[in-house]
Amino acid sequence: MTTHWVKRLGCAAALLALCITLSARAADDPLPSWNDGATKQGIIDFVGKVTKEGGPDFVKPEERVATFDNDGTLWIEQPLYNQFVFAIDEVKKQANQHPEWATKEPFKSVLAGDMKAVAAMGEKGMLEIVAATHSGMTTVDFNNSVKQWLETAKHPRFKVLYTDLVYQPMLELLAYLRANGFKTFIVSGGGVEFMRNFAEKTYGVPPEQVIGSSGVTKYQMWDASPALVKEPKVFFVDDGPGKPEAINRVIGRQPIFAFGNSDGDKEMLEWTAAGDGLRFMGLVYHTDAAREYAYGPAGGLPDSKVGTFSQALMDEAKGKGWIIADMKNDWKTIFPPAKEAP
Amino acid sequence: MTTHWVKRLGCAAALLALCITLSARAADDPLPSWNDGATKQGIIDFVGKVTKEGGPDFVKPEERVATFDNDGTLWIEQPLYNQFVFAIDEVKKQANQHPEWATKEPFKSVLAGDMKAVAAMGEKGMLEIVAATHSGMTTVDFNNSVKQWLETAKHPRFKVLYTDLVYQPMLELLAYLRANGFKTFIVSGGGVEFMRNFAEKTYGVPPEQVIGSSGVTKYQMWDASPALVKEPKVFFVDDGPGKPEAINRVIGRQPIFAFGNSDGDKEMLEWTAAGDGLRFMGLVYHTDAAREYAYGPAGGLPDSKVGTFSQALMDEAKGKGWIIADMKNDWKTIFPPAKEAP
Repeated sequence: MTTHWVKRLGCAAALLALCITLSARAADDPLPSWNDGATKQGIIDFVGKVTKEGGPDFVKPEERVATFDNDGTLWIEQPLYNQFVFAIDEVKKQANQHPEWATKEPFKSVLAGDMKAVAAMGEKGMLEIVAATHSGMTTVDFNNSVKQWLETAKHPRFKVLYTDLVYQPMLELLAYLRANGFKTFIVSGGGVEFMRNFAEKTYGVPPEQVIGSSGVTKYQMWDASPALVKEPKVFFVDDGPGKPEAINRVIGRQPIFAFGNSDGDKEMLEWTAAGDGLRFMGLVYHTDAAREYAYGPAGGLPDSKVGTFSQALMDEAKGKGWIIADMKNDWKTIFPPAKEAP
Repeated sequence: MTTHWVKRLGCAAALLALCITLSARAADDPLPSWNDGATKQGIIDFVGKVTKEGGPDFVKPEERVATFDNDGTLWIEQPLYNQFVFAIDEVKKQANQHPEWATKEPFKSVLAGDMKAVAAMGEKGMLEIVAATHSGMTTVDFNNSVKQWLETAKHPRFKVLYTDLVYQPMLELLAYLRANGFKTFIVSGGGVEFMRNFAEKTYGVPPEQVIGSSGVTKYQMWDASPALVKEPKVFFVDDGPGKPEAINRVIGRQPIFAFGNSDGDKEMLEWTAAGDGLRFMGLVYHTDAAREYAYGPAGGLPDSKVGTFSQALMDEAKGKGWIIADMKNDWKTIFPPAKEAP
């Protein structure tokens, strides 16, 4: 063999080794949908430190509690909270059983398709719609309605199922944390029973790790069998200060990792930060009008009624060194790859 | 070798094999503190059936939810609920901060040691004592008080720590279920925060699998730090119909296995029985005045204010084929072996 050929072979071997290294790196990347940068590195550094046995920041597996908001943190929340879209669809579906709705607000406007009028009625109108459509039935019947809706209803802009509009980078983050011994919880202002109909399949979060708002549910006989019947009465609102209160009541441990995206997550993040040792606090910042939506501080959607992320929270987050996941810059992809047609 | 010796050797080998088989059986017994009989066999048969892949009664691991009452089911509840003893001890401990208690009932009688007068005030007096001693402090301070009490307070009859008065057969049952893929939950009328101070260490049940009654807890600033402050207001009573309601809200799955010991567990047992497929419903029946206490239907302790197990519930249990764990006959030992002196 001439020296020439030896050099060529050596070069080929080096290239091959490089290829193997690069592909191994890509395969090893636990967060492939996150662009390289401070945000991704901040997550990886934190997980590395709290799982390093003998290290100064080591946390025992049973104390690795991670809590995530849902709307706007794990899945889309614009132009309306998805659960509210479900409630509106339920008003239409249940209308024939409620002739009184034809002349009674806010149902009258919903049935007339006048969403501007519904929006004008504010939170009160919204709560009335949710209460009316989430009660007077057993939990089994309610779950069936939610499942049916999730399998058929499509998002007005993206024209796909709502469960296709979860954030791929956050799915990877959930899986990465679990692979590192974390227990992942959802702690959301959304209805706990609503979320459980997709959380296990979509996020890998089992029902007993979903915490949310809830209505009063009464155990009683129903068609001669024991049943839990949903009443039109609020039991608990899992938002703002309600989040740490519910975390304490249901989980009984202080999280070491929390991710949110709005002012409703402020207390959960502060409560997480208040514990001893290394903590991770993160906020999803919706900056991508092209691929999703832009809202929050300096964002668009000024009329948005959902997902309020105030300048005050942004200032607090920056001042305290919390991680800001900027959708446009930090996320390579937003939604999971489209499923192939069956 | 003569035939004689061959026979002897053969016999020795057979005996040896028998010894090995017997000792392997004893080691394999997952419930060594349960006497052989229908109760123990009922448990083992149920677990065998629901874990047999491909069998008609197979239940997927994630749906193997087992719920246990605590007082009288997992640990002693006589002569008073242990948490109530803690509350009484707290009244004495906190008395110097509350001069008004010297003249105010029910505190006055507690401080005078007049438990008869306290008992005469019934549930109302009891709730007042619990509310007063379980509020006006952060959850951290409360947990510290409970831990200190658990490490020092002794049971009046058995003169050992309360956590030494858990039922050994039930500890084995919890471990046996977990070894078979079950998730074990406590669903008790007792305070959720009180129980979490020993449930993980004593029962192997982590905080997030403990469900109980709770008071209102408010997130607020306390000494310039975020804290959860306990208020003297009931949030939820996890007893009777409250048990299936809380199971639905917190676990979000119907149990396939439930164990209780009183009328307060009736709805949890009925709710468990109401699900599809094979279910296990069990009741601890306190029949052993010598080794523990005898109360409930046809039992002693007629004045007992706790752990009411009515004849009606016994009739229902027998009629529906629920398992009755008769302490005197089914349990070889009641409490774990005494710990060696340090």
